[in-house]
Amino acid sequence: MNEYVTAAAQKAKDASFALARLNGQDKNRALHAVSDALTERRGQILAENALDVAAAKQAGNPSAFIDRLTLNEKRFDGMLATIASVIALDDPVGAYTEIKKRADGLLIGRVRAPIGVVFFIFEARPNVSVDAFALSLKSGNAVILRGGSEAVKSNTAIVKAIRAGLKKSGIPEHAVTMVENTDRQLIADFVKCTSSVDVVIARGGDALINFVRAESLIPVICHDKGLCHTYIEKDADKAMAMHIAVNAKTQRPGVCNATETLLVHHDFPHTKEIIDALIAKGVEVRGCSRTMAIIPVKSADAADWDTEYLDLIISVKIVDNIEQAIAHINRHGSRHTEAIVTSSLANAERFKEEVDAGVVMVNASTRLADGGEFGLGAEIGISNQKLHVRGPMGLLDMTTLKYVVTGNGHIRE
Amino acid sequence: MNEYVTAAAQKAKDASFALARLNGQDKNRALHAVSDALTERRGQILAENALDVAAAKQAGNPSAFIDRLTLNEKRFDGMLATIASVIALDDPVGAYTEIKKRADGLLIGRVRAPIGVVFFIFEARPNVSVDAFALSLKSGNAVILRGGSEAVKSNTAIVKAIRAGLKKSGIPEHAVTMVENTDRQLIADFVKCTSSVDVVIARGGDALINFVRAESLIPVICHDKGLCHTYIEKDADKAMAMHIAVNAKTQRPGVCNATETLLVHHDFPHTKEIIDALIAKGVEVRGCSRTMAIIPVKSADAADWDTEYLDLIISVKIVDNIEQAIAHINRHGSRHTEAIVTSSLANAERFKEEVDAGVVMVNASTRLADGGEFGLGAEIGISNQKLHVRGPMGLLDMTTLKYVVTGNGHIRE
Repeated sequence: MNEYVTAAAQKAKDASFALARLNGQDKNRALHAVSDALTERRGQILAENALDVAAAKQAGNPSAFIDRLTLNEKRFDGMLATIASVIALDDPVGAYTEIKKRADGLLIGRVRAPIGVVFFIFEARPNVSVDAFALSLKSGNAVILRGGSEAVKSNTAIVKAIRAGLKKSGIPEHAVTMVENTDRQLIADFVKCTSSVDVVIARGGDALINFVRAESLIPVICHDKGLCHTYIEKDADKAMAMHIAVNAKTQRPGVCNATETLLVHHDFPHTKEIIDALIAKGVEVRGCSRTMAIIPVKSADAADWDTEYLDLIISVKIVDNIEQAIAHINRHGSRHTEAIVTSSLANAERFKEEVDAGVVMVNASTRLADGGEFGLGAEIGISNQKLHVRGPMGLLDMTTLKYVVTGNGHIRE
Repeated sequence: MNEYVTAAAQKAKDASFALARLNGQDKNRALHAVSDALTERRGQILAENALDVAAAKQAGNPSAFIDRLTLNEKRFDGMLATIASVIALDDPVGAYTEIKKRADGLLIGRVRAPIGVVFFIFEARPNVSVDAFALSLKSGNAVILRGGSEAVKSNTAIVKAIRAGLKKSGIPEHAVTMVENTDRQLIADFVKCTSSVDVVIARGGDALINFVRAESLIPVICHDKGLCHTYIEKDADKAMAMHIAVNAKTQRPGVCNATETLLVHHDFPHTKEIIDALIAKGVEVRGCSRTMAIIPVKSADAADWDTEYLDLIISVKIVDNIEQAIAHINRHGSRHTEAIVTSSLANAERFKEEVDAGVVMVNASTRLADGGEFGLGAEIGISNQKLHVRGPMGLLDMTTLKYVVTGNGHIRE
């Protein structure tokens, strides 16, 4: 095991005990100080980011990648706004969700406590460092940040500023650790630190997620792909169905909550108009044979139903009924976000109950599955795993519930 | 990958979708039918168990092991009582924990849903099969049971009876699967079925838990060892401290929530009497040097502070203050159950806040950390992991929260 990794994880663990003792006021004061420190070093951070961006361009990365990597003035303001929104959230630590009293007077309570040490693996998006740090600090956790290699200069500058702010607030600097060496072997080592790291949160593509899952001895919360569907029932309102389908596919096609496959009931009378509207927005449509009988589009092959395009492409399948739609979703979906457009209460209830996903939408766009839209203040990702948290993962999900039992000499008889 | 494993996991997955649709009444009817089927086959099951017990005795297993393996009339009644207690619990599936309404009318709710497929690895204790099945069915999950090899005949007979009860109730028999081949390689295969198995719950010793963690691509909830401490503050009531220390160690020493190490404040005036009381109960005491200055006991070595005796042995350490006690616990404890005996509110609050464990007890015996004692009806184990659930894992913890969002044509602007 790499010595740097063991030492970094242990220092984070030590810091986590100090963080667990802070009250909300102290944490907010520290977040204000961090915000000030980032503001002071704004020019420096943007300059380091410009170096990352120049190198990534040189390396020939696609424009969507460059866009996510870039910190401009607006995104920098966004980072500060995220800190402000986390400051505005109630301190989750120490809040009781329940206290029961037994007949013999024993009090059994559950209280929110920090998780401890979070090892966070994410893509080359420097603003995510700030989101993750702010959520971790407010929930009393130490965080080890392992961002994409192309953002190392940006992240290093950001974490230096965060630590300067922490220092002013008297908080251990190991509340945040930035892994500058992006060799994958270090990930493999961090995810084996069972005595110091409590949870691994991994955002990224299939290859990275599979690597982390295979190597980790610690539970991993995965934020991987979003293969989302929108299903239009026969009784759906035409305008609403069109509005939602177009928004779900085209409002921002490169992200995980965009719709990739449209399922349509074969008795829905406006399939052609919906597809026309998508085509008019520049979408490439790949249809099943029944779709192609309605409108001449490219033919979808078997792989299409399992493809997250992250682009202006959509597959369309005509189904006989809601059973088929749900079965298709539960087979091909990535347990992220699934939507139905319907005017039938029975169909809405059935879809909500039977679809296996973190977020189920009725008469709303899949694009709304987002911590900000859900009022969580900020999110560390969208979990498409079932343990601990499903869907957008916010501040409360960065805590665990601990049983606190108070007696007066109670024993087991 | 073993074909039997892939097929069994897929059949469980298919069954899980049917289980998710059942309402509480149907599930209770099925649990009654299972209870009846077990009752009908009582003689047969006890006879199969007697064969397991005879073989285990022949193989020279220790008496505590034989005890856990044995199903007698009383334990059989206990199994039926567990089913009855699970029937009495509210159906958790479909209950909303909250529904928020956004300013634009979008409703954002969280609803309890089954996890899906649970792969459950446990020791050679046949009654645990029934507990796990009852909790899984009531929470709408399919369960794959992989019990200790010494209990295969018992478990096979039990699961046959369960399936007979399910058949009468029209519920897919793959709601429960019993893995008869106890080759460890099959465990390694099951924990890689990422598309069909949703969670792995593992009860067992360090070697088994480490094997499962290393092999699994699926999050594992571990119910491993209980290295529990009882800390006596200087201001503790003498009678209460004695009462709790003796109960925590001796009431049932062979289980995970028994206390293994006693920490005592150096100004507590009755350390000798406490140790005398333990010795009088037949406990072997191993003390630190300061303990040995108070009373001549065997000397504890470094390994003692990390040893789960599961026997009438206790290590005793004198500490300078509560900080030292908490630091010792957070370093050597297994995050299971930790207790303080004190009359000081400040000490109680500090201990509750800073000790990193699933269950923290104030003025109560560690032996009380138990799903039954906590009113959970039944438990599938005691988690000493932080993700998803800490402490006793009951019916609610066998579910996840799914976001359900209802709009009226809402889109992302």
